[in-house]
Amino acid sequence: MSHGKFITLEGVEGVGKSTNLLYITEWLKKHNIKFIQTREPGGTPLAEQLRELLLAKRKESVDPTAELLMVFAARAQHLSQVILPALDRGDWVICDRFTDATYAYQGGGRELDRTLIEQLEQTVQKNLRPDKVLLLDLDPETGLQRAARTGDADRFESEHLVFFNRVRAAYLERAEAFPARYAIVDASQPLERVQQELGRQLERLL
Amino acid sequence: MSHGKFITLEGVEGVGKSTNLLYITEWLKKHNIKFIQTREPGGTPLAEQLRELLLAKRKESVDPTAELLMVFAARAQHLSQVILPALDRGDWVICDRFTDATYAYQGGGRELDRTLIEQLEQTVQKNLRPDKVLLLDLDPETGLQRAARTGDADRFESEHLVFFNRVRAAYLERAEAFPARYAIVDASQPLERVQQELGRQLERLL
Repeated sequence: MSHGKFITLEGVEGVGKSTNLLYITEWLKKHNIKFIQTREPGGTPLAEQLRELLLAKRKESVDPTAELLMVFAARAQHLSQVILPALDRGDWVICDRFTDATYAYQGGGRELDRTLIEQLEQTVQKNLRPDKVLLLDLDPETGLQRAARTGDADRFESEHLVFFNRVRAAYLERAEAFPARYAIVDASQPLERVQQELGRQLERLL
Repeated sequence: MSHGKFITLEGVEGVGKSTNLLYITEWLKKHNIKFIQTREPGGTPLAEQLRELLLAKRKESVDPTAELLMVFAARAQHLSQVILPALDRGDWVICDRFTDATYAYQGGGRELDRTLIEQLEQTVQKNLRPDKVLLLDLDPETGLQRAARTGDADRFESEHLVFFNRVRAAYLERAEAFPARYAIVDASQPLERVQQELGRQLERLL
């Protein structure tokens, strides 16, 4: 039986992930591809509880290594309970953020050691990597203005522009380091153009 | 300024940790030693929330690596917010379980790779190790009978005897590997004898 494709959607706040996720799932339905849609951190009851702890604003300052380990704990649970079984069944998996977000937010944003992230990635994922990372790229200043319209900021969204500039730079570094796996999509374009590009990327996976 | 001493109390369910913790803190007060008493997993609001997630019984089976990463996430937070600042002030720290419990429960009980635990220990603790690990040792069958008297079992307490036999064996292996740091206290003795022995161990740290 053939293994399903593993596709992740990445980008800073306000790049339009929700709208474009909807486009991707419609595209998959149109092509009669069995898939599951999920997200990180989260995707199982325990992993969603970890997400809540990660996003909650709190008086206590959160140790960056503690944050990183929580992210990978949620990921280990998500992989074992949801992602790996789906791929093994031959379903495609569409995931709203995955390990590239860890390199971007904890590595870039929090400036944690990349070697540590690589070690945890190897421990938790073994050889699993996304077949395609769709990176919606946008100037963080524009993204934050868009995101601000949609309600209360969580602990990450409350970070400053300089944080998100580091996040974006880390995403772009990853895309440069792994060009075959990444597709950078310019999210400042009109939505229709963005989606044409997403469609083209998906076609290539068939 | 001198650094405080870091003392951890370890053992399987029902060895009498609570009673003996009380003895230890009374001993410290009698000797006019400034100290904090804390526990793992836990010790900060976030780490206590992680403890709740770890102990909760759930339908979802918990991936052992996810469990291990949650334990070390809580530890990183506890160290940065509570333990290291206390030791730096010169206070002693008395902690109900620490990393030896991880070697025992996740390494021994869950049979996770010890090398992975060592890597995480090094990442999270750098060179910090307890000055003294007080291991209350007891046959798990006796311990479980004692523990069963005290109410509802959590996710760990619900494990079977074979699990706790592995936990005990892993504790004893650790004690053998690090004889200077460990004190094995036979918890099957009358309480008075146990506490005399704890007192002797504490004297040596002065």
